[in-house]
Amino acid sequence: MIIEKFVSRSEGCWKSMRSAHSLAFRQFEDVLSEIKIECLAVDDAIVTEYLEKVSIDSSSIVSPFKMSWEADSDWEPEDPSEVSSGSCILIPIPDTDTTGILLRSVGYAEAESATSSYLFLEDDTFILNTTYGQSVAEERIWFISENVRCRSSVLRTSSGAGVLQTSFASEIRRISSD
Amino acid sequence: MIIEKFVSRSEGCWKSMRSAHSLAFRQFEDVLSEIKIECLAVDDAIVTEYLEKVSIDSSSIVSPFKMSWEADSDWEPEDPSEVSSGSCILIPIPDTDTTGILLRSVGYAEAESATSSYLFLEDDTFILNTTYGQSVAEERIWFISENVRCRSSVLRTSSGAGVLQTSFASEIRRISSD
Repeated sequence: MIIEKFVSRSEGCWKSMRSAHSLAFRQFEDVLSEIKIECLAVDDAIVTEYLEKVSIDSSSIVSPFKMSWEADSDWEPEDPSEVSSGSCILIPIPDTDTTGILLRSVGYAEAESATSSYLFLEDDTFILNTTYGQSVAEERIWFISENVRCRSSVLRTSSGAGVLQTSFASEIRRISSD
Repeated sequence: MIIEKFVSRSEGCWKSMRSAHSLAFRQFEDVLSEIKIECLAVDDAIVTEYLEKVSIDSSSIVSPFKMSWEADSDWEPEDPSEVSSGSCILIPIPDTDTTGILLRSVGYAEAESATSSYLFLEDDTFILNTTYGQSVAEERIWFISENVRCRSSVLRTSSGAGVLQTSFASEIRRISSD
């Protein structure tokens, strides 16, 4: 699997069911949301602008895309502050066919940009590792059919010792009827 | 990763947080439970008895183990019939270092025995495929530290077309204080 194919398979609107597990408190959090993934041109203005800011040459990038998400409209959270939506630009820079880095722009709802490293396992599972200030995240995405994909994440302390939270999302492609 | 090492790492008591996603109904089900995994001797009477029943020679098996589970005692389900507990015997028969089959005995709470095929990915993720009468299950188990493992499952119709349910469990080893 090369990153271009992975991004292309991911394009579309996805209805997501996500469960987060807070391990220390043994608490569950279940959220319905909708995720939209759109491919962008390599020379799209928003991509070019971001690359200039981080001083990266556009010739090294492939398949930039935009990801946006919002809480599902038929889902009424108990706490209105939990309604979240946002978007960000993601820019892959392949190293080999199965490894590379992924730049993530400052999103509308995110305070920080991030640089992740990625790799594909032999069964095309996509693994993304991101180091933040206080924590380290591992995310896995694998397709179980053309229109269903799974996404898991593990968030641990920077020291690597403690696992803070895990999550799992089932994402079903929304087939537009209009 | 060879199956012996995987079984050995899995031995112990695990506190499990499990979320199931019913895709058609967009429903979540969250369950707390406790899982106990115990290694058995190859010549343990219960193993020998099962192998005789299915006419399999004991020289081909390695690392048989018993898995038992029960709903967590501090968890009060709304429907008492949902309280489940049970156990089964699992018997690996390696083919290569990274592939093989796994026999599962008739458990106390299970009506049917099952034969699964397994494989390890290059990052030691364990993948188990099981075909039942009406459905096909893929289960993945991966360790994220010595004492935390993740387990996901996907249940689809036998034809392979429809995904019925996904699930994800975070399993934390219970360190005994007594």
